[in-house]
Amino acid sequence: MFISFEGTEGVGKTTLIRSIYDDFMAQGKDVVLTREPGGTPMAEQIRALLLAVNHEETMAHDTELLLMYAARAQHLAQVILPALAAGKIVLCDRFTDASFAYQCAGRGLRETKLQLLNDHFVARMPDITFWLEAPIELGMNRARARGALDRFEQEKVTFFEKVRVGYETLWQRYPERIKRLDATRTPEQVFEQALSYLKSGLN
Amino acid sequence: MFISFEGTEGVGKTTLIRSIYDDFMAQGKDVVLTREPGGTPMAEQIRALLLAVNHEETMAHDTELLLMYAARAQHLAQVILPALAAGKIVLCDRFTDASFAYQCAGRGLRETKLQLLNDHFVARMPDITFWLEAPIELGMNRARARGALDRFEQEKVTFFEKVRVGYETLWQRYPERIKRLDATRTPEQVFEQALSYLKSGLN
Repeated sequence: MFISFEGTEGVGKTTLIRSIYDDFMAQGKDVVLTREPGGTPMAEQIRALLLAVNHEETMAHDTELLLMYAARAQHLAQVILPALAAGKIVLCDRFTDASFAYQCAGRGLRETKLQLLNDHFVARMPDITFWLEAPIELGMNRARARGALDRFEQEKVTFFEKVRVGYETLWQRYPERIKRLDATRTPEQVFEQALSYLKSGLN
Repeated sequence: MFISFEGTEGVGKTTLIRSIYDDFMAQGKDVVLTREPGGTPMAEQIRALLLAVNHEETMAHDTELLLMYAARAQHLAQVILPALAAGKIVLCDRFTDASFAYQCAGRGLRETKLQLLNDHFVARMPDITFWLEAPIELGMNRARARGALDRFEQEKVTFFEKVRVGYETLWQRYPERIKRLDATRTPEQVFEQALSYLKSGLN
């Protein structure tokens, strides 16, 4: 089973993933916890390029999208596909939906570009995706409290609102796969809501 | 005018580009000399990832292709397109043909993947491309004489022979754009042959 976690900055993805990881581990399941962009040493180097704040050179939107898919291709080949083939559960912090939300809805890149990258370079989509939704300002405050902001976190509220709407579009488009979680609730409540979706999906 | 230079390792691309650059400069032309992967500080960071010899993690073929196009997107946006728009001559050491020769013919990636990347992420193709052809062993010896070999240069002769055949395929497919130069001849002879193509193309 392949589970991805999506949402804008500071909505509590990390906390939820950790809780679900611990829960699966307590059941004796074999679980891989990973993230995008990144998840392998090489893909983490690509992540570093993507997140670096560079005042001398603006990253072109196409470059950003292609770097995301380069990291994803490596992550799929080295981590996700082998783990799934070995019968493990994969928990992934962000996946292709993030590319739609950030690069298409956020940056304004045409969706055809993303679609063809998904069609030709993504062999496996998640079985279930949890979208943690909260008002942008709430998440931004949490992200700022964590410390120095990366290249994405430095974007303005209007950008993240577009990203949030991008996630909403996907949630409406793929209701079977994408489950919305109310991230304004307590971490325990969010975890319980996710667990109930997992249990109904596993039956 | 956008001119690219192609060929396997050690065929004398750098020497030829330098001669053509000097010739244009002597004519008072505004010329930009650049290379791929690379050509901007950010794209050069991607180049470093591509060329690095990594014994712990194999780079997936898809990752290699997407990193090449990420660097290319940045190079086009920051250097090539602005220079051409300003009426400059752009001399580029490798471009999309190298992706076909190395990633498709060499690595065996399906050409449809490359075609869609070209269609959606490459706004401008070269006006003329010089393909320097020499027997693989000759070039390999020259490359080895230059010092430590990068991740590509460490490939075997059979790989480079496939790359050479890839270039030959493109040369047969695009005879108007791609001009073959006999790289077994002296640098002066190769330069003269290139100049004669440029002069006939400019008339």
